Amino acid sequence: MAQDVRIGVLGFGTVGSALLDLIEQQRQEIADRSGINLIVTRIAVRTITPERQALAPEATFTTDPLEIATADDVDVVVELMGGLDAAAQSITAAFEHGKPVVTANKALIADQAATLFALADKNQVDLGFEAAVCGAIPIIEPLRTSLAGEKITAVVGIVNGTTNFILTRMSEQGSDFATALREAQELGFAEADPTADVSGSDAAAKAAILSMLAFGVNMSPDQVHCEGITTISGDDIAYAKRRGYVIKLVAIAERLESGTVSTRVHPAMLPTTHPLAAVREAYNAVFIHGEAAGELMFYGPGAGGAPTASAVLGNIVGVGRNLAQNTFESVGSLSERAPVPLAELSSAFYIDVEVRDQPGVLASVATEFAEFGVSIESMEQFVTGEDDRAVARIVFITHRVAESAMNSTLTAMASLDTVVGIKSVIRVRTEDTEDPVAGA
Amino acid sequence: MAQDVRIGVLGFGTVGSALLDLIEQQRQEIADRSGINLIVTRIAVRTITPERQALAPEATFTTDPLEIATADDVDVVVELMGGLDAAAQSITAAFEHGKPVVTANKALIADQAATLFALADKNQVDLGFEAAVCGAIPIIEPLRTSLAGEKITAVVGIVNGTTNFILTRMSEQGSDFATALREAQELGFAEADPTADVSGSDAAAKAAILSMLAFGVNMSPDQVHCEGITTISGDDIAYAKRRGYVIKLVAIAERLESGTVSTRVHPAMLPTTHPLAAVREAYNAVFIHGEAAGELMFYGPGAGGAPTASAVLGNIVGVGRNLAQNTFESVGSLSERAPVPLAELSSAFYIDVEVRDQPGVLASVATEFAEFGVSIESMEQFVTGEDDRAVARIVFITHRVAESAMNSTLTAMASLDTVVGIKSVIRVRTEDTEDPVAGA
Repeated sequence: MAQDVRIGVLGFGTVGSALLDLIEQQRQEIADRSGINLIVTRIAVRTITPERQALAPEATFTTDPLEIATADDVDVVVELMGGLDAAAQSITAAFEHGKPVVTANKALIADQAATLFALADKNQVDLGFEAAVCGAIPIIEPLRTSLAGEKITAVVGIVNGTTNFILTRMSEQGSDFATALREAQELGFAEADPTADVSGSDAAAKAAILSMLAFGVNMSPDQVHCEGITTISGDDIAYAKRRGYVIKLVAIAERLESGTVSTRVHPAMLPTTHPLAAVREAYNAVFIHGEAAGELMFYGPGAGGAPTASAVLGNIVGVGRNLAQNTFESVGSLSERAPVPLAELSSAFYIDVEVRDQPGVLASVATEFAEFGVSIESMEQFVTGEDDRAVARIVFITHRVAESAMNSTLTAMASLDTVVGIKSVIRVRTEDTEDPVAGA
Repeated sequence: MAQDVRIGVLGFGTVGSALLDLIEQQRQEIADRSGINLIVTRIAVRTITPERQALAPEATFTTDPLEIATADDVDVVVELMGGLDAAAQSITAAFEHGKPVVTANKALIADQAATLFALADKNQVDLGFEAAVCGAIPIIEPLRTSLAGEKITAVVGIVNGTTNFILTRMSEQGSDFATALREAQELGFAEADPTADVSGSDAAAKAAILSMLAFGVNMSPDQVHCEGITTISGDDIAYAKRRGYVIKLVAIAERLESGTVSTRVHPAMLPTTHPLAAVREAYNAVFIHGEAAGELMFYGPGAGGAPTASAVLGNIVGVGRNLAQNTFESVGSLSERAPVPLAELSSAFYIDVEVRDQPGVLASVATEFAEFGVSIESMEQFVTGEDDRAVARIVFITHRVAESAMNSTLTAMASLDTVVGIKSVIRVRTEDTEDPVAGA
């Protein structure tokens, strides 16, 4: 006999209605395979309309989420409202009434994880948030369970579909940023105001969550160093391609040798052999490097109503199974550790410098690299001739160098008479993968 | 306070010793984050030597696995012996003594899953087997948990590293099969007797397990239609590449419209845009198509001591957490459904036909396709001129067609006077992915 699990849903937008459809479609199979019978008893919406009620005729509608969080006929609260304060208030009330919570609220988890994790544990209830990062891609649960024995050294993710779509179009069709963005908007992959995506701040919230899961450290989004993709040019992408790289916006959470954790979001050139390099269009993927496990990657659609509903439902089934056994799975606690300042890291860099087209200019630029101990891996010079100014373009890729040394180099270089301007600086990430054969 | 979880390990080879190292290294972090303290109390080996004992000085050694399965000071039994009968006997004894089991034994799970699942449930203990398929790649747990709400339609995996290494070398370096196999053997990616790998039978066992997890149906390896890669030629690979395909050995578990499940292993041409196409060398990956979740992929190393130990340890931590809470996670039951005969499926095909180089030969071959209703997507004719026989080669790619119609066509074609021989028949798999933009 399947045990009833009564669900209260807060918020009934795209994900909420996709969830109800999915529950309806999968109810029998879930009952057969997991022994629980899912019933949506209550739904909170901002405005109750007959159209909405018709979509869930068995459920009681309310405009008060708190009513659901405390209702006797709700076993699991599913928070799909979004936003911070009202959502946090409802989840807190649910926990205090002994109810487990499943949420897709990335912003809330990133902002208040430590508090919410502690409160769930204190009340001995589950908190599921698989849908908060990368939609239907199972990444939160594997980090919590399958990889619980693994010493993870780095998590590198393409966690924002909009920017990946834009970069894919720029790379494959030679579009410039503005054109690719417009196309993304027309196709529904970017919002009218794309700031949160293209600035990297959406990715920063996800980076913070991944960092918490992979390393057990508390990390708020404003502690995440964040650079977006608005300055990436067609020249950068073309040069990257010619040298065997692709440019991706990556969210990185990395365990340094000191045991500290660095979390950051920025564009990076990845070798075309990197597993993330083949992630195209609006797809997301998270690459994980572990000392024992080696190189893992999780790939899939990062957004959308149905994929997000699928992740939410997976969590609901897990929570329901635990309820049926009168148990819960601790989210674990987060330790407080100071994030590592970017200046303490090191990276290889691509640098595109516009210079006056005159003898001795390369020497003057090279002198600055030498002064700060920056070693050059490759250099190419182009005459741009795009107007009647006598300018040329020199593109460098450096070996790995301290961020601080690179900053000093760029400052000194920018003040040279021979330098018109530094057009681009993009990190080059080659450390994730090794040819599995070359080393054998 | 972390709760002690006492582990008895059966078998102390590559994975066993990697596991002990990993437990030693991760003990503190696991205690901090999961609240359990892992202690290896007992180890069963075929022969007790002082060298082995020195590797685990705190553990009691025995040559009798059953002694560990029933010992009072063992909370979790970790089966790394391999083989069928003795392993099954030990696991059964462990279950009957109320002990959960973690195993990496692919052959045993594939062969006896229904019995073992039922026995674990009857005794209310955990059975973890993440390491049985694709080493450290979390695929078993996500199928059991995160995707529990998803209607999975297809699982397509590159689940054998040896054959993927060989096919990668053939594709990227133009090696023939024998050369690539020799190289794989020299580098340790293939065994001296590579039969289980190159025949597809290793992949068939994994396909059976994936089919059980994704669809809840019982499936033994000998019900899995299985073709290997020994007949793949350099010509096939070169032609595939020219047409935008790569050839991979794939394990497929697919839900048909009738609700039945087809499970099979065979080489397939995949479009280069397929997420699996970028999986190179000895890496494994499992692609999953779900109705709500869309296209997912899990990627990583499919074998090796440390990756396998990582998967085993992830399971041990999960089982340990459950023990600490006096609970367990049901593996679920498997339903019995007759597997679908291959003849009832359909596919697109690549066919390489050697013909006499004379007028009218294409017409005679095309007539056979027409007779059985096989529609041709593309055709190319090559004069081989490799000896003084007047032969040519015609390569076809068909549209999707019933396997039975293809079989009839091939039989009829082979008996034509104009046909010297059918050199290759490889399925072409285009149905997994859709360009996310083309349809928008």
